[in-house]
Amino acid sequence: MVSKPKITIVKIGGNVIDDAKALSEVLLAFSKIEGAKILVHGGGKEASRLAEKLGLTPQMIEGRRITDAPMLDVVVMTYAGLLNKKIVAQLNAFGTNSIGFSGADGNVILSEKREKGTVDFGFAGDVVSVNHQLLKTLLISDILPVFCAITHDGNGQLLNTNADTIAGEISIALTPYYDVELCYCFEKNGVLMNWEDDASVIEILNGEKYDDLSKTGAIHSGMIPKLNNCFEALEKGVKKVIIGHHSLIGNENSIHTAIQL
Amino acid sequence: MVSKPKITIVKIGGNVIDDAKALSEVLLAFSKIEGAKILVHGGGKEASRLAEKLGLTPQMIEGRRITDAPMLDVVVMTYAGLLNKKIVAQLNAFGTNSIGFSGADGNVILSEKREKGTVDFGFAGDVVSVNHQLLKTLLISDILPVFCAITHDGNGQLLNTNADTIAGEISIALTPYYDVELCYCFEKNGVLMNWEDDASVIEILNGEKYDDLSKTGAIHSGMIPKLNNCFEALEKGVKKVIIGHHSLIGNENSIHTAIQL
Repeated sequence: MVSKPKITIVKIGGNVIDDAKALSEVLLAFSKIEGAKILVHGGGKEASRLAEKLGLTPQMIEGRRITDAPMLDVVVMTYAGLLNKKIVAQLNAFGTNSIGFSGADGNVILSEKREKGTVDFGFAGDVVSVNHQLLKTLLISDILPVFCAITHDGNGQLLNTNADTIAGEISIALTPYYDVELCYCFEKNGVLMNWEDDASVIEILNGEKYDDLSKTGAIHSGMIPKLNNCFEALEKGVKKVIIGHHSLIGNENSIHTAIQL
Repeated sequence: MVSKPKITIVKIGGNVIDDAKALSEVLLAFSKIEGAKILVHGGGKEASRLAEKLGLTPQMIEGRRITDAPMLDVVVMTYAGLLNKKIVAQLNAFGTNSIGFSGADGNVILSEKREKGTVDFGFAGDVVSVNHQLLKTLLISDILPVFCAITHDGNGQLLNTNADTIAGEISIALTPYYDVELCYCFEKNGVLMNWEDDASVIEILNGEKYDDLSKTGAIHSGMIPKLNNCFEALEKGVKKVIIGHHSLIGNENSIHTAIQL
């Protein structure tokens, strides 16, 4: 059996996006990771700030943004414009050959507008497919794709899409060609037993433990969608999934949570 | 001598960017052009509108924008975010495989911050080099690059850059590999003898005629930088340069100005 090359897929999000100095350090560490890699970034608070300046009222339900038409313009401007291009320019200053992507670019992530349920999320997209052929072509050419959390429906409509899900779906799509390591980075040191105590990191979280902790309500509700992405990725062939602080990038000896089936 | 393949490079700008229906028609016509192609788009009035909503005062000198730090954020959001992604999503709905680019993406256009002269243009960039190798790789993979008017300095700084110049520089950079046809599209039917009279199109404008008309002041001052780009492109190996209305795209029998040395 021919062994597959390794790829590291890192999702960054939360406060680090809004902190230029911290972001620069994270990008420098990321740029030094050996081998193929992809970065997926969230939006931080910039979109909400811009929306407020424009007189819009950002609305979040269960941690997910309600995206009406004016808010879609705001997130496209912020995620695909300001943040994505700043990140790409900085990564390239660190010697990478990064190209920024929304899911519309190269038809790389096709999604469908979420059906109205009890909540109308507006122009929110759920991922349908990832153009893994294009990604493979880019990666072979030593290009580092940098994804923001915008996708499209293939009919010209842009859609706001969860960045954790994008990272998970890209990871799954690349499993035929790569041994994929997926790393979710955020403010905390990992999945915590006690949300208030950053020292309470669960070092290994397997499915059984997750079920147990979910039942007792010990897992913070905001972590549930992220953890579901993690387990789905592992079930679909991603080799390794870890969750931890941004300082984990390039330094996997630091404390974190390893997700296991 | 092996003949080179043809590439069509189209710059669109002006009012069409702000008119969703007209833009859609232009993109449909562009999507149908046979063979390799690249689109470069200007920013329309969207950036100024957004700036005004945010309490900034857009300032233009000689048709060029003064780009201080807050205005740079606005143009990056608008050009590289909103406009570029809407255009890419629409072109891909028309069956292309477009990827949106700022010059930072893939280090494709390196520029340098303009020196302060009598006017301080702020974060305005003048093109230094085009990464033609990457463009060639993309074009061979049937990717259609869509450029906005943002570049970078290679040290992490984004810069606002004239879209006409970007179109010209990309055209010149591809001359070793392609027979390049460069088409500047805008509101007018071409270069006009009388700016007020849209029927006064100069069908062929060569260097001698241009010199003569420049001396008499017949050429509208706003056309001078665009025309300088045109002549430079021809001098540096671009095969054909035309200027005309957006309706020219895919319909070269319609009236326009052909620039000749």
